[in-house]
Order: sequence, then structure tokens, then C-alpha cells
Amino acid sequence: MKISFLGLGSMGLPMARLLLQAGHTLTVYNRTRSRAEQLAQWHPVVADSAAGAARGADVLVTMLADDAALEGVMLGEAGALAALPRGAIHVSMSTISPDLSRRLAARHEAAGQTYVAAPVFGRPQAAEAKQLWIVAAGPASAVERCRPLLEAMGQGVIAAGEDPARANVIKLSGNFLIAAAIEAMGEAFALARKYGVAPAELLEVVNGRLFRSPIYENYGKLIADERYEPAGFKLKHGLKDVRLILAAGDAAAAPLPLASLMRDRYVSAVARGWSDVDWAALARVAAADAGLDQRSTG
Amino acid sequence: MKISFLGLGSMGLPMARLLLQAGHTLTVYNRTRSRAEQLAQWHPVVADSAAGAARGADVLVTMLADDAALEGVMLGEAGALAALPRGAIHVSMSTISPDLSRRLAARHEAAGQTYVAAPVFGRPQAAEAKQLWIVAAGPASAVERCRPLLEAMGQGVIAAGEDPARANVIKLSGNFLIAAAIEAMGEAFALARKYGVAPAELLEVVNGRLFRSPIYENYGKLIADERYEPAGFKLKHGLKDVRLILAAGDAAAAPLPLASLMRDRYVSAVARGWSDVDWAALARVAAADAGLDQRSTG
Amino acid sequence: MKISFLGLGSMGLPMARLLLQAGHTLTVYNRTRSRAEQLAQWHPVVADSAAGAARGADVLVTMLADDAALEGVMLGEAGALAALPRGAIHVSMSTISPDLSRRLAARHEAAGQTYVAAPVFGRPQAAEAKQLWIVAAGPASAVERCRPLLEAMGQGVIAAGEDPARANVIKLSGNFLIAAAIEAMGEAFALARKYGVAPAELLEVVNGRLFRSPIYENYGKLIADERYEPAGFKLKHGLKDVRLILAAGDAAAAPLPLASLMRDRYVSAVARGWSDVDWAALARVAAADAGLDQRSTG
Amino acid sequence: MKISFLGLGSMGLPMARLLLQAGHTLTVYNRTRSRAEQLAQWHPVVADSAAGAARGADVLVTMLADDAALEGVMLGEAGALAALPRGAIHVSMSTISPDLSRRLAARHEAAGQTYVAAPVFGRPQAAEAKQLWIVAAGPASAVERCRPLLEAMGQGVIAAGEDPARANVIKLSGNFLIAAAIEAMGEAFALARKYGVAPAELLEVVNGRLFRSPIYENYGKLIADERYEPAGFKLKHGLKDVRLILAAGDAAAAPLPLASLMRDRYVSAVARGWSDVDWAALARVAAADAGLDQRSTG
Repeated sequence: MKISFLGLGSMGLPMARLLLQAGHTLTVYNRTRSRAEQLAQWHPVVADSAAGAARGADVLVTMLADDAALEGVMLGEAGALAALPRGAIHVSMSTISPDLSRRLAARHEAAGQTYVAAPVFGRPQAAEAKQLWIVAAGPASAVERCRPLLEAMGQGVIAAGEDPARANVIKLSGNFLIAAAIEAMGEAFALARKYGVAPAELLEVVNGRLFRSPIYENYGKLIADERYEPAGFKLKHGLKDVRLILAAGDAAAAPLPLASLMRDRYVSAVARGWSDVDWAALARVAAADAGLDQRSTG
Repeated sequence: MKISFLGLGSMGLPMARLLLQAGHTLTVYNRTRSRAEQLAQWHPVVADSAAGAARGADVLVTMLADDAALEGVMLGEAGALAALPRGAIHVSMSTISPDLSRRLAARHEAAGQTYVAAPVFGRPQAAEAKQLWIVAAGPASAVERCRPLLEAMGQGVIAAGEDPARANVIKLSGNFLIAAAIEAMGEAFALARKYGVAPAELLEVVNGRLFRSPIYENYGKLIADERYEPAGFKLKHGLKDVRLILAAGDAAAAPLPLASLMRDRYVSAVARGWSDVDWAALARVAAADAGLDQRSTG
Repeated sequence: MKISFLGLGSMGLPMARLLLQAGHTLTVYNRTRSRAEQLAQWHPVVADSAAGAARGADVLVTMLADDAALEGVMLGEAGALAALPRGAIHVSMSTISPDLSRRLAARHEAAGQTYVAAPVFGRPQAAEAKQLWIVAAGPASAVERCRPLLEAMGQGVIAAGEDPARANVIKLSGNFLIAAAIEAMGEAFALARKYGVAPAELLEVVNGRLFRSPIYENYGKLIADERYEPAGFKLKHGLKDVRLILAAGDAAAAPLPLASLMRDRYVSAVARGWSDVDWAALARVAAADAGLDQRSTG
Repeated sequence: MKISFLGLGSMGLPMARLLLQAGHTLTVYNRTRSRAEQLAQWHPVVADSAAGAARGADVLVTMLADDAALEGVMLGEAGALAALPRGAIHVSMSTISPDLSRRLAARHEAAGQTYVAAPVFGRPQAAEAKQLWIVAAGPASAVERCRPLLEAMGQGVIAAGEDPARANVIKLSGNFLIAAAIEAMGEAFALARKYGVAPAELLEVVNGRLFRSPIYENYGKLIADERYEPAGFKLKHGLKDVRLILAAGDAAAAPLPLASLMRDRYVSAVARGWSDVDWAALARVAAADAGLDQRSTG
């Protein structure tokens, strides 16, 4: 099976490496060609263009920054979709809108190809450690055919039905729920500090006894320690994702007031110059709104 | 040690029973006297008034509905505070405002008494099963003296420092974080339904793989099943608690926009006649806002 | 007609003066007695206590800071209500909750007295200039009997029915609508500045051509000029009023998400130390959230 | 001067008519050709395509539904921009994003053409009556050259500087301020109804005495009467505009929480099937959230 992989960013690079390490033959393409050098020891073929990579592929995996990047690479005049053979499968692993997934699915179908949405849960660290969870939706036979590839890239594959948009909605909802937990902790910690309760103490009581969740544990610690750098997942990408879920809600007539609240928080964080710190800094906006400086726990 | 217990509601009754079962001598008082009959087999003394119960007590435990009830019982002219002996301890276990805790602490101190705030996490079911978590704050010696009583009523006691308000803030923050998780799931589930993803499927992916939290598991199931009756914790009590945290935030200059969002949701739920269903019905407002009827999962 | 007036703050003082200047015999009381000296040239009787002022009065006018102040003065053990004669009228002009109005109405009725709610629109400057609008609600005969007094204190009296709570709700709604206009301008001006449009230019287009409202004109200028001191109406009083309307909404099951949004903005303003500047500084929070410093219009 | 006009919708049609009635020679194009028949008595040239209309024009006026429509018509392969002569001016009157304005300005400049943004305030009725306000921004000489055309279409032209995005931001801000006034009245009226105060009474007090604004007057009456059909400006277009201002705020790092609140309200209105009623029905969502049925004033 000839596999091509587009996008060697902080997520795509370790994912491509895992495919190579699992013994797959891989053609890779990245706009900044030098990124591919980090895979040199596994000898991938390095293509000169997305279309070049797509040509002749059985499966085309994409892991790009956002809707615009994916649309640009796939649908442009010299796009990868046109170069991809009939019968091929496009496994789209970026966090994108359900709307783009549906449009791509239709375009691939028209070209005699198959589209599978397979977004992932996990940060670059998790990708490196083969700890991603992969949610895959698309025609069952295509999902099954890709399963060995997906399993090579993560700790588990969750089949999510035939409509690829379902996988994207699940992914966006998951990120939204994590962001909501961050927002809630941010507010609670700011309040607690005003009453002389250290965030770590509150976290220990509430997560230690009630939530018992690694999400609260990990993000709670980042917030309690105000350790927003280096970023595991940048705040500007959190903003991107909340934009996506708001657009998905708008398209389907589902109001999302908590997502809206967080959107404005993220935008304020960007205005304060915090685009590139960890998205847990959503909580830093809550603290600033309460007049709390960093490192001045009550 | 002579213990008196005020308030035999759905929480207070099993807590008083646990004290009796642990072998403590107990005087109880409840506005509706008949509630005490359920404790008859353990032979508590049944007082005719709050002051009557307080008279001669070493420790006075209160578990009442809200700030107004507690203030009325303790501070009224014929209130329990005036009847309580010097040297006695008031263990205040209701979910109340940090402000009232501080006022009561000052009043008790002026009367030569000690005030300990000891709010609990857990629903009536948890109280019945001795599964409450108790957060206790107040003078260390008083907390230690009450520890056997507290341990008789729950699965664990968490000491939270000398300022009683700290315990109330931790309690309110915990409830706020749970409510926030409910709100977030409510919005995510409504969106998911619009894309044909059943809430249970989303929950399984997100909590099963990421959050792994019993809070998300239990409330997520209630919401997914739209099982809001019978109420474990009534929505009107959720509204009461969000009012308390908003007031605590206001008093300490900590904005809580997510709490505000939920306040309005709860108020809308009350307007829709849902005061007495489970507070997880916060999610039902999200569904209604998205035009989703109950039991019509997409 | 013997009139007594309680509360000689920045509003009460000019209102009492207007009554005196209109030829009414007035007994005044203020906690800080020296305030009454400013009325010396019109020779009011200066009482030593609220009850002392109420004793023997035909009409008791109150203009106090808030619910707590009014409740304290009227309902305390040595309160003014108990001292007021049967048949007397209490004209309550403070901005208070509809709930307190209803409770006071009931208490006065039980004492054979009549309660009229008559809150006012206008800042101290307007009070000085006899430019207040007065919204009066209560039993029609009582309102009519007080009309000459009310007319002496403002530019017009608006009769608002028999239920005194109606007047308070109208007053709170009016303040809410003004605050909402401030919030909206604050957000729009911050956005405009980011695109190099000066707030004054935007105001000129939008209010000059569309709204044509003195409210937008006056507050818009304050915001455009960032002229928040001296305060015409302090931000902490704006917060007080938004608390009141939120409580009124809660009591009547009316969600007020825009009021909630403003509440959190005000609380954030307090956290930033802006309690005592003009309430138009709500807009300053919007600017700060957008990363805009004062006086750095784009 | 050869003028071409693209877009004969409910706004474009009367605007084109006004140009014809002012004696200008006009070529018109509309996707649904039959719309042009309504202009037959003034004998416009009717083009077969947007590009056909643009060919040879001195000034190209566009009045299309949204960003996508304008982008499609102008920038497509056979788009109007490519067909427009060097030296021509594109007067873009639709309500679009400042971002698209800037992109179009750059594209026109590269083609030796000039771009003027000239969005309008006013509903179709106002367009019919030549009552529009037109905000024009672009190179001063181009704005001046177009002034006679613009003056033929409205009651006044407001010059807003050289950067075309400024005009779009002013337009979006104006619509946002109107929507905010609607939202605020919606909430206040719902509260008032709960206390037995008819919206018309509240409006009369607050607008009659304080705001004195035709915007509050007109929209206030629509809301008080719950007269949302026929739509003067459809709710789905209100949603479109709030999306635009949120995107403009996002692009410039200006949070707009009130716009976000209204976005979710609009989305909920769409979910309730109210897309095509007047955008004042934003207030209907506030009433529904308070459990108020239509026509059941308290």
C-alpha cells in the first residue's frame, strides 16, 4: 500500500515517523522541505509538491494547520485531489470544520475516491509517544482498510460511523469540553485566591476527591503554577478551535454561549499578547479580570 | 460530649443518624418535628426549639437550607447562638456564603464560642451511604475536637485552614465546577445531536478516553438519558448555589462570567417550570435553546 | 402638611432644598448631621433620629443609599415606620428592589399607613436643576396627595399604577437600558479604535444620523474622551443597580444575560480600582480587554 | 459617466432606480434577470453577466447579499474585476467585512482601478424613499468623483477617510449598536411583563423621557407589539451582520461579548424557525427564555 503524508508540523512529523517505523512505505510532503530531514533515517520519499505526493498514492494522509491550509492543498487548481488516483482514500486528520469534511467527501466521491475524517486527541508530546486517540468516520470499508495505519499512529482508533462530519464534531466537542474545564478552573482559582485559598489546594480537594480526572489534574497544575510556557497547545490554536465549533454550531443552529464566552476570552488574550503561550492561559484572563497579577497568589 | 443537631432535611437526617449509629448522644431539632421520628430507633432527645437544643450543648451541628435559615435559627432574638454555652463549638455544615461564615465566626467569638465551617460534598444518597466529603475550616483545636464527629458522617475530612470562609469558598467552587461541567456537556450534546451524534457516544469517547471522571460519567449519563427526575439535587438548589458564588465573587471583586451564564440558564429553567428537577437539567435549557425537544435525539 | 425627609446625600440634599424653596415645612434627618447645615438658610427642623423625624409627619420622604439603608432606617426596632402616625404616607424615592417595596407596602398597610414608591431618573446635577423625572406608584389617592411635593422636586411626575413595585422595576429597567447603551458603545468604540476610527467619529455618524439620543450623545462623549472623573454616577452604584435588576429578574424568573455580562464587567472594574469613577467606565473595561490603553486612540 | 450596477435585491433595486431617475445612464445586472424588468420604464441596459456589466464601465456599483456573493461576482475567473477597465472605480455598497474590503482594495489597485467602500444605513423602505445614509471611504478623489451618484441614492453621504475598511467598520458598529438596543429592550420588556408593566408603558417612560431616540421608538414598538412580520430586515441578516462584526473583532483582537451574546440568541432564533421574521425578534428569544408566550403580556 503506497501511502503519502502531507504536513510535517509538530503533530504530523511524529505521526509520519510512526508510520515509517511501523514499516510502511511513505512519501512525504511539507511546504518547508527541511522538516522532512528529521525523518531521513527512515528513508521516506520526499515529494516536491502536494500533488506530486498524491500522484499514485493508495492512501493520502493529511495533517495540516486548518481549514484554509487543507482546502488550499487539496482543492487548488494544482491540488492534491486532482492528482490522487481513482479508488484512493484521503485520511484527513487535521482539526477542521465538519462543513469542510462534508465538502471534501463530496468532491472525493465525485472523483471516484473516498474520504475518511480521522482527527486526533492529544498534543505533540502524545503524538511522539504514540498516545493519540484517533476518531475515524467514513465508509466502513475505507475505515477498516486504513485501520492498520491509524493504529500505527496512536493508542486507539474509535470508529464513529459513516458520516465523516461526525468525527470532526466529536473532536471539536472534546476540545470544547477541555477548554470549558480550563475556563471553569480559571474562574474558580481566581475566586479562591481572593479568599486566600491557593489554587493547588482547591484542585486537590475538588479533583482529588470529586472529578478524579487527568484533564483537570494536568491543566489544573498548569494554571495553579501559571506555567504557560512552553506551550503544549498554543492559545491561538485554542482560538482557532473555538471558532470552528462556533461555526459548526451556527451551521446547525446550536447556540454555544460557553464557547462564545471563551472566544472572547481568547481574543482578549491575543490582545494582551498571549497568542503563543499555552491555551490554558485562558485562565490567566480570568485572573487578570479579577485584578490578580501573576505570581501573587493571595 | 453533648451534641445537638439542627436541621433534619434530606441531608441532615442521614447525617444525624450516622452520629447516633456511631454511639454519640444527640439532641435533635427540626422545624417539622415529625422528621425526627425516623430516628426513633436510636433514641435521640428531640428538642422543642433551636435554642432548646443549643442549651447545654458542647457541639452544635447545623445543616439547614440556606443563609437565611441559618441566620434565622442562630441569630434571632431567641436564637441558638444566645442559648449556646461559652466554650461550645458550632459546626456549620450547610452550603452558605463565606460572608455569613465570617459574620457567625465573629459573633461566636464575641460569645466565647468557636465557629467551624464544615460544608460537605455529596448528595443525599451519598449522605445515606456515609460517602460525603467534609471540608472543615476553623481554629485548629476546634476542628480536631470535632474530627470524630465529622468522620462519623462521611468518608473523609479535609482540613482547610483557620479561616472558616475558606471551607465555604472551596465548597462553592466545587459545586461551580460541577455545574460548569454540566453546562459544557449540555452545549456539546446539543451540538452533537444536530450532527447525528448521540450524547452517549460523545460521552463515551470524551470521558472514556480523556476525562475519565466519575462526575462526567454520572452527570453525562443523566443528560444523555434526559433523566432529570427524581432529582438528586434540585435545580432550584443549583440556582441557590450559583447565587452564592456570584455574591462571593462580587464581595471579593472576582468576576465569574461562566457562573453568570449558568445563573441565567437556571433562571430560564425556573421560568420553564423546572425548579424541582435535577440540576443537570441545566443541559435541558441548552437543548431547548437549540430547538431540540426532549427524547428526539437526532 | 408636615413633611419629613430622610437622607441628605448628593441626591437628597438638593431634593430637600427644592421642597423648602417651594415653601414646604420640612423636618430633615441625616446620619451625618452636618449635611443639614447646607439647608440652614431655609430653616428646616433638624431631627436627631429617623424615628424622631417620622414622629408626627404626614408624609415621610426617604432618599437613602440602598435596600439595606432603607430597611435599617424604617424597620429597625427604633425604626421610622413604628414612629410614623397612622394615616401617614411614606414616599420612597431611593433606587431599591421591587421586593423591598412590596415588603414595605405590606408593613405600612399593616400599620394603617400608605407606601408610595417614587424613584427618580437623573444624576445629582439634574436634582440640583429640578430636572429629575419621578416615577410614582402606589394607591392613586396617595400619589395624588403627594403630587405637589413630587412636582416641587423634578421636571415631571409619571404615574405608574397602584403596585409600588412597578415604579421600581421601571426605574431599574431604565438604568439597565442606559448601562446597556454604555456597554454597547464601549465594545463598538474599542473595535473602531482597532481599525483607526476615533470613537467621536463613530458616535457622530451613529448617533448623529441614527439614534439621535441625548443618552448616547452624553455618555458617548464621556467614553470617547475617557473622561470618567469626576463621577456623575459612581461605577459602584452602577454595580449596585445591576445587582438589583438581576435580583428582580431572579425573583420573577426573567433571565437577564446582558445584565449579567455587565455585572461581571463592573466587578472587574472594581477589581481594577475603578469603583469611584463614573459608571461609563464600563466602557473602559471593554477597552482594556481589547488591550487598549487609555489615551492611545488608534 | 458610464455606470454599472450589480445586484437588484430589495436594497439594490430602489437604489438603481434612484440613479436612473437622477438621469444617469445605467447598465444593470442581476442573477435573476427578471428583477430588472421593474426598472423597464427607465430603460437601463440589462447585461447578461457581471463581467458583461463591468466591461467599459467608469463606475461599478455593487449591492450584493454578503461577502461570498461579492467575492464570487468580483474575483471569480470570469469575474467583474477582470472585466473592469483600468481607471474605473468600484463602489462597494453591501454590508461586508472590513477584511474583504481591504482585499478588494488591493486587487483593484493592482489592476489600476480604485475601490471605494460605501455601505448604507437604512432598510429597503428607506432605500425606496431616498432616506439612506451612505458612509463612504476610499481615496478622496474617487469618493468625490462618486459623490453625485451617492447623493442620488440617499439623504446624505458621510466621508469616512481613505481606508475603505473604516466605512465597513462604522456600518457594522452601527448595526451592532441597534441590535444591542433591541437586545436590551427585549430583556427589559420581559422583566417588566413579569411585574405587570406593559412594554409600551416602559418604552414611553424610558424613551419618551430619557433616550428620545427614533431607534428605540421604532424597534421598541415592534417589540412591544410583537410585530415581527413582515420583516423590515430579516433576522438571518442580523445574524449575518453579527457574524461579520465578530470576525472583524477577532481579526483586530477586540473581544465583543455583547455581540457574542446576541449571536447565540440569533442562532437560537434560527433553531426556533424565526430566520425570516424581523431581526427585532431577538427580543422574542428573551421573552421565550423568561417563559413568556407571545401575546400574553403579564
